Amino acid sequence: MKIAAEQIASVLGGEIVGNPAVEVNTLAKIEEGTEGSISFLANPKYAHHIYTTKASVVIVNKTFEPEHPVSATLIKVDEAYKAFSKLLEYYNQVKLMKSGIEQPSVISEGVEYGEDLYLGSFCYIGKNVKIGNNVKIYPNTFIGDNAQIGDNTVLFAGVRIYSETVIGQNCTLHAGVIVGSDGFGFAPNEDGTFNKVPQIGNVIIEDNVEIGAASTIDRATLGSTIIRKGVKLDNQIQIAHNVEIGENTVIASQTGVAGSTKIGKNCMIGGQVGIVGHITIGDNVRIQAQSGVTKNLENGAAVQGSPALPHSDFLKSYSYFKNFSKIVSDIDSIKKKINE
Amino acid sequence: MKIAAEQIASVLGGEIVGNPAVEVNTLAKIEEGTEGSISFLANPKYAHHIYTTKASVVIVNKTFEPEHPVSATLIKVDEAYKAFSKLLEYYNQVKLMKSGIEQPSVISEGVEYGEDLYLGSFCYIGKNVKIGNNVKIYPNTFIGDNAQIGDNTVLFAGVRIYSETVIGQNCTLHAGVIVGSDGFGFAPNEDGTFNKVPQIGNVIIEDNVEIGAASTIDRATLGSTIIRKGVKLDNQIQIAHNVEIGENTVIASQTGVAGSTKIGKNCMIGGQVGIVGHITIGDNVRIQAQSGVTKNLENGAAVQGSPALPHSDFLKSYSYFKNFSKIVSDIDSIKKKINE
Amino acid sequence: MKIAAEQIASVLGGEIVGNPAVEVNTLAKIEEGTEGSISFLANPKYAHHIYTTKASVVIVNKTFEPEHPVSATLIKVDEAYKAFSKLLEYYNQVKLMKSGIEQPSVISEGVEYGEDLYLGSFCYIGKNVKIGNNVKIYPNTFIGDNAQIGDNTVLFAGVRIYSETVIGQNCTLHAGVIVGSDGFGFAPNEDGTFNKVPQIGNVIIEDNVEIGAASTIDRATLGSTIIRKGVKLDNQIQIAHNVEIGENTVIASQTGVAGSTKIGKNCMIGGQVGIVGHITIGDNVRIQAQSGVTKNLENGAAVQGSPALPHSDFLKSYSYFKNFSKIVSDIDSIKKKINE
Repeated sequence: MKIAAEQIASVLGGEIVGNPAVEVNTLAKIEEGTEGSISFLANPKYAHHIYTTKASVVIVNKTFEPEHPVSATLIKVDEAYKAFSKLLEYYNQVKLMKSGIEQPSVISEGVEYGEDLYLGSFCYIGKNVKIGNNVKIYPNTFIGDNAQIGDNTVLFAGVRIYSETVIGQNCTLHAGVIVGSDGFGFAPNEDGTFNKVPQIGNVIIEDNVEIGAASTIDRATLGSTIIRKGVKLDNQIQIAHNVEIGENTVIASQTGVAGSTKIGKNCMIGGQVGIVGHITIGDNVRIQAQSGVTKNLENGAAVQGSPALPHSDFLKSYSYFKNFSKIVSDIDSIKKKINE
Repeated sequence: MKIAAEQIASVLGGEIVGNPAVEVNTLAKIEEGTEGSISFLANPKYAHHIYTTKASVVIVNKTFEPEHPVSATLIKVDEAYKAFSKLLEYYNQVKLMKSGIEQPSVISEGVEYGEDLYLGSFCYIGKNVKIGNNVKIYPNTFIGDNAQIGDNTVLFAGVRIYSETVIGQNCTLHAGVIVGSDGFGFAPNEDGTFNKVPQIGNVIIEDNVEIGAASTIDRATLGSTIIRKGVKLDNQIQIAHNVEIGENTVIASQTGVAGSTKIGKNCMIGGQVGIVGHITIGDNVRIQAQSGVTKNLENGAAVQGSPALPHSDFLKSYSYFKNFSKIVSDIDSIKKKINE
Repeated sequence: MKIAAEQIASVLGGEIVGNPAVEVNTLAKIEEGTEGSISFLANPKYAHHIYTTKASVVIVNKTFEPEHPVSATLIKVDEAYKAFSKLLEYYNQVKLMKSGIEQPSVISEGVEYGEDLYLGSFCYIGKNVKIGNNVKIYPNTFIGDNAQIGDNTVLFAGVRIYSETVIGQNCTLHAGVIVGSDGFGFAPNEDGTFNKVPQIGNVIIEDNVEIGAASTIDRATLGSTIIRKGVKLDNQIQIAHNVEIGENTVIASQTGVAGSTKIGKNCMIGGQVGIVGHITIGDNVRIQAQSGVTKNLENGAAVQGSPALPHSDFLKSYSYFKNFSKIVSDIDSIKKKINE
């Protein structure tokens, strides 16, 4: 898949300086460029690399003027980084253009699916599953009975979708994601044993959601665990039963949300955060990494610590914690002084 | 699968108020009830929903007397929540009534299995594996050589059981659970590299254990990692080599237990807790979420913090931590005063 | 697979005391030994077990002289523990001696592989994958297009290798490991939604790396996420895009490293640690469990806490935190005194 600089310039609406016929077949960082690769220069801090890079083509900002000779062909665009991203996306889509139904795979009775399905080998599609158009399902994936998968959604290798799960359009679930496993609900008996509380709700994932590798989302006890549109979850995140996560909220890896908690829109939640069950987190909330949230949070709140405090309060208290020795020695000095 | 209110009432030993012939085919929360659904009302706080719900049938406490007209058929029972749970369980079991051996699947030489096995497609059963009666193994599951699985145990899609693992009766392992992977044991060499310490023990999981999605349990270096009967583990829990967890202990998600630690019976351990290796935790211990346990704990201990302190000590210290600014300004006032 | 004591003694270069013809077929802890098992005694603390063990053979230190009659056959060696480890390794290797290509499995066009390949059923090998000699790939494993796997590497059941990943020689990846999933990169739009930043780099894992069950390693946005030779990762570890981990660094379970952070050689990193993105950690650094590292660390640094402080500072501050009630009551006494 070789492509000429002039073709790329035309896709990006850019202007060529250098040889328009030079061809590339891979992408690289500017400092790691090799012959046949295309790179970009956006940050002036890295401008020195352009004089030594071996990349054949470099995308630069329109305003960039080299101070020394440059061997690479340049493509000048309004915003080099955005243009390169567009290119990456294109490149990626090409790589994702798998289609067809590979054997062996199992499509159970009552399954419906749209156009351009890719179904990898060793995939198992349960009864009455509905799959939209242009869905890509990589090998070794399991989809339980009655699940639904919207258009343009990609399930990477080894995803596990339990029965009754509903997934929207344009979603990406990475390898090892598990959706719809039982919530953790047990009723204690007098002898110390537990009875399982059956978990017969489901999970609903709306459109444009991305879920990172090995994250787990439990089905609701009753009703639905809901991931609203545009939510982005990193790897190894745990979402318990009956949780609801609002639109466009972003959560970093290894965070866990306990049962029945409701999180608002547009929140930014750091990694390794724990959020207790049965609370309500407002919109636009920011939670620092490793925090433990134990109480409702208002819209726009920013918190840190375990248990979490308002962010600035935590920072102040922690700065004193750091100097605790000094504070204690002050107290000792005072004691001595007043006992004189 | 439609079922009449009178049949349900008879299963639950309840009394019908309304139309005994009305049929339902799904379960719903009372506020989300639709025609054809059955719901329940246990908490008087939600009693107002019963006058507006569209559910066809609602299970209520015997003592409940409506103050306004109710369109749903009521089933009056001693305890509405328990009755509904029973129903859920029934409903769930029906859904779980899969059976038969699906193709393609691999059953290696020397495998023995009992009645009513469900073996999903793309399952791999290693040599000499012993499987009891009424075991359900969902697609894409792997069971290594010489493993044993007891009666009525369910392995959901993509479970990985390494060789020599022993699993008891009535266990449920959710999707992505991994049992019997190597413990993390390496002996340092003088040049900074490490030699692997072979891990040739196994894992024993006793009866009535439930393990949540994507949890991992390492095999013992020598001997066995042991999960005692009735233990309930949530999702994404990590149990290291040679750990033992006592009967009916419950652990919330994303908690990790390091090597050779022994945990007692009937403990309640929160989420994202870390427990160091080679310690002993007594019976009936409570560990708050995100705690880090670094020392032996006596029977009945309750701890919080990282490193963990007695729970009430932690709460006291943390309340001062929150007010650290105030404390420091007190000290500053004192300093000023005594220097006057 | 029965083996006589004299054969074992000859492998280990040891001296037999007792019956050289006694046969064993399993390994056991000394206190759990049964007839037909071999065990070892290294720590004098456990010497009393040797007089009661039912193990048929026990490996002991050359210097060990029983004070009472011993029924087991003894094999005397320079270092009992090392000798037993060697034996375990041997035993383990025998168990790992799987080979051959099992059906059904998929080997796509352009795949090359060396001698003694084991490829389990339901494995999917993508296009142009290169596999070295003596590679063992357990069932239900997925390897994406253009990936490379070096000699003697073992992939346990259900490993997921995305396209373009490069894995070196003598590596072990446990069940459920995911390598090469997309990094977590999204560019915010003005309306609160996000655009995905395509992730088109890859992951490079050098030689002699071991990765624990269910760990996830994201591909680089551009360039490579790199795990240097000899690195040992425990279970459920999360390595984000563009991270680099130096030679022989060891990381305990459930730790997460955020994007573009570079970690040096020979570090020891505890469990449940979080490390923020875009920082540099030197060589020989020690990070205590559950710490949160937010800043660059020099070679040889030792830290603890969230956010992390120098280890001894943290311990001092935390010891005061524990005694916070006492400190506050001191302050109250002072206040009373100076207000008299």
